[in-house]
Amino acid sequence: MDLKVSPLAPERFPEMPAIAGLRLAVVESGLKYKDRPDLLLAAFALGTTVAGVLTQSTAPGAPVDWCRTHLSAGVARALVVNAGNANVFTGAKGRVAVEAMAAASASAVGCRPAEVMVASTGVIGEPLEHEKITAKIAKLPARFGLDQWELAAKAISTTDTFTKGAHLTADIAGVPVNIVGIAKGSGMIAPDMATMLAFVFTDAKLDASVLQPMLKRNADTTFNSITVDGDTSTSDTLLLFATGKAEPHLTPADHRDPLLRGFEKALHNVLEDLAIQIARDGEGAQKLIQINVTGAASKRAARKIGLAIANSPLVKTAVAGEDANWGRVVMAVGKSGEKADRDAMTVAFGGIEIARDGAQVEGFDEAPVTAHMNGREVLIETDVGVGRGKATVWTCDLTHGYIYINADYRS
Amino acid sequence: MDLKVSPLAPERFPEMPAIAGLRLAVVESGLKYKDRPDLLLAAFALGTTVAGVLTQSTAPGAPVDWCRTHLSAGVARALVVNAGNANVFTGAKGRVAVEAMAAASASAVGCRPAEVMVASTGVIGEPLEHEKITAKIAKLPARFGLDQWELAAKAISTTDTFTKGAHLTADIAGVPVNIVGIAKGSGMIAPDMATMLAFVFTDAKLDASVLQPMLKRNADTTFNSITVDGDTSTSDTLLLFATGKAEPHLTPADHRDPLLRGFEKALHNVLEDLAIQIARDGEGAQKLIQINVTGAASKRAARKIGLAIANSPLVKTAVAGEDANWGRVVMAVGKSGEKADRDAMTVAFGGIEIARDGAQVEGFDEAPVTAHMNGREVLIETDVGVGRGKATVWTCDLTHGYIYINADYRS
Repeated sequence: MDLKVSPLAPERFPEMPAIAGLRLAVVESGLKYKDRPDLLLAAFALGTTVAGVLTQSTAPGAPVDWCRTHLSAGVARALVVNAGNANVFTGAKGRVAVEAMAAASASAVGCRPAEVMVASTGVIGEPLEHEKITAKIAKLPARFGLDQWELAAKAISTTDTFTKGAHLTADIAGVPVNIVGIAKGSGMIAPDMATMLAFVFTDAKLDASVLQPMLKRNADTTFNSITVDGDTSTSDTLLLFATGKAEPHLTPADHRDPLLRGFEKALHNVLEDLAIQIARDGEGAQKLIQINVTGAASKRAARKIGLAIANSPLVKTAVAGEDANWGRVVMAVGKSGEKADRDAMTVAFGGIEIARDGAQVEGFDEAPVTAHMNGREVLIETDVGVGRGKATVWTCDLTHGYIYINADYRS
Repeated sequence: MDLKVSPLAPERFPEMPAIAGLRLAVVESGLKYKDRPDLLLAAFALGTTVAGVLTQSTAPGAPVDWCRTHLSAGVARALVVNAGNANVFTGAKGRVAVEAMAAASASAVGCRPAEVMVASTGVIGEPLEHEKITAKIAKLPARFGLDQWELAAKAISTTDTFTKGAHLTADIAGVPVNIVGIAKGSGMIAPDMATMLAFVFTDAKLDASVLQPMLKRNADTTFNSITVDGDTSTSDTLLLFATGKAEPHLTPADHRDPLLRGFEKALHNVLEDLAIQIARDGEGAQKLIQINVTGAASKRAARKIGLAIANSPLVKTAVAGEDANWGRVVMAVGKSGEKADRDAMTVAFGGIEIARDGAQVEGFDEAPVTAHMNGREVLIETDVGVGRGKATVWTCDLTHGYIYINADYRS
C-alpha cells in the first residue's frame, strides 16, 4: 500500500545533536522491509540509567514483558529495536526470541543481557525469525555513529508516513544538558503493523529513582493524552535513558527537586512534541484536534472527559465533515462517566463559545466557526462546570482514509 | 439524505397482537417530518405498572430526568413519544416542554401528569416547540386503536432504515400472557438524530417491584450488550409497562419467583430480538457481528471484554474488510483492562479456532474462515482462560457508510 505523507506532517525532520555517551547504528535486517533500515542498536556508556512506561494491555508482547522485568534495576547499556514483526502473541517462542536479541546485543556492546532493553513492532502472531536479527546485531558495532537520528527514527517505523524526532536543551543548575527523542506510530493504530514506540535520551546524570516518576507523570499529560482510535497496542513502549555524560552538574535530592524544573519542562515539551507528531500521523488524518477540558472534578477526571471526546467516532467524523457539532461534544462528556453540570456547561470551537449554561448561545455568528473548522487544526474547548480540574488531549479526525487503511487494505 | 434499508433488516415487520388494557394513537405533529407519523400516545388501563432503564449519561435530556423522577412510583397511565427533536441540552425551556407534554397527555387520557412517561428523540440543542405537540395530543384520543404497532414503531423512529418490533407469548402458572415491544435506533448513533428508545408492553399483572429488577438484569444482557460506535445517547430509554389485563394468574412472591421463569425468558428474548434489530440497523452496517466471550473472571468482566472487542474500530474495520484478524481481537481483549491469560487464550471466527494457547494454530485451513467472513453474519469467539464468566455482545462492522452518514452528510 502506498501511503501518502500526512498533510499534517512537519516540514522536515529536525536537526538533532549527538548525546555524549550514546552511539547509534542501523541496518536492514532482511526480515520484512526492503531498501530501508529496520533494526536499531543504541549503545550506552557505563552508568547509564533508564526509566520506562509500558502498555497497560493485559496481553502485552514478549519484549514488553522483558522490559518490565529488567527496568526495575534502572540501568541500561543497550537498546535494540526491530520493525516488521512485533513478537506479540507468539507464545514460548516469543520469549526465546527476546532472549536471543538481548544476548546478541549484550555481546555486541559488552554487557549483561539484563542491561539490554528490547522493543519490536510490526506484524503480530507470527513467530519472529530472530536468527536473522541476531546475525545482523553482531555486525552493528562496526557501524556505530553519533547522531544518525533520522536513520534511527526510520529504522523503528512501520506504517508511519513521516519520521518523528524532537529535541531541546535545558540546564541543571546552570549546566546545559540535551534531550533528544525519536518516536514511531500512526496513532494507536493497527496491531498488524502498529504500536507506539518512543525513545528519549539525555546526557544529564540522573538516578533511575528520579527519572521514573518524572517520566510517568509527563507521559500522562503527553503520550497518554493522545488517541487515534482508542485502541491500545500490545507493545506501546516509552523509554528514557540518561547517560550522565554532560558536564558535571549538581545532583538533585529527589524527583521533585526545584533544580530539575527546567529539565522537567524540556522533557515534557519533547514528549508532547513527539506525541502530537503521532496524532498528526493518525491513519487517514486530515485534521489535528486539540481538546481542552476545564472545570472538571480533578485533573484525572478532565483527562477522562477529554479522551471520551477524542475517542468519540461521532465527534471525529463531525470534525472530518467540518461541522462544529457541539451536541456530539456534550454527548461525549455525558458518556465519560465523570461529573459534569449539564446546566452550567460551555462548549467552544476555535475559541468561539457556541453553548453556554446548558443551551445554545442565541444568535451566535456561525461564519468564524466555519472558517476555523475548514482549517487543518481544530480546537475544541469545554468547561464542565463542577471544579478546577483541567487537561488537554489531542487526536485526529476520522475519515474515509481510516476505513480505507484498515478495512479495504489487506496485508 | 436518502438512506437505503439496511441489508441486515428482517424481511418484514412482525404481526403483533393487541395488549388488553393498552390503546395506541399516532399522528403527524407538523414539527419536522412530513408524510409520516412522528407522535405516539399510548394509554394504559388503571393499575398499569411500569419499570425503566435510562441512559447512564451524566448530561441526560429533560425527558430522561422526568422519567427518572416519576418511575419511582411504579405506575403509569400514558406514554407520549415524539420524534424530530430530542429536547436535550435545552436548559430550563426543556423542563417546561416536558411538563407541557405530560400535562396535555394527562388531560387526554384522564390521569395525573406524574403518571405519564415522556420520551423524545431527534435533534439536540434546539428548543422543542411543544405547543405544536400539545395541540396534537389533545386530538389523539379520537384515534385510539388497539394494535397499530407498525405505525407506532414508525412514529418513534428517526434515521432508522426499518421499523422494529418483536413479540412473544409466555405463561404464568398456566395463564397465557403477551409481551410486545417496539424500538428505534440505528445503534447508539448520532445525537443529532439519535437515541435508542424501546417500549415493551405486557398484559401480565406484575408489581413494579417485580418488573424493575427483572428489566434491569435483562437489559444488561440485551440492550446494554449491543453497541454500534461506543457512543452513549443522552436520551436512551427502555420502559416496560404491565397492564394486568390478561386472565387472572397467580401473583409471584418476588422478582425471583420460579413462577416467572417462562415470563422472564420471553421478556429476555423480546429485548434481545429488539436489541439485535438495532445492531442490524447500525449506521453503514453491512455485517452483524456476534461476540461470545468465555473464560472471564466474571459475567461482568466477560461483558466488558466483549464490548472492548465490539467497540474496537480496528476489529470492526477488519470485519468490514472480511479479514479474520485475530490479532486485533487479542489487542482489544488486552485493552479491556479485565484479567486474561495471554498464554491460554483462544480466538475463533465462525467456529473455527485460529489461535490457541496464546499463538496461531499451526497450519489451520483458511478457506472455511474466509467463507464465513464473506457472509452477512460474523461470529467471533474468544476464551480468555481465567475463569467461568461468559457474555455475548452484538455490533456491526465499521464501513465507509458510517463515515458518509456522520461526516459527509450535513443536516
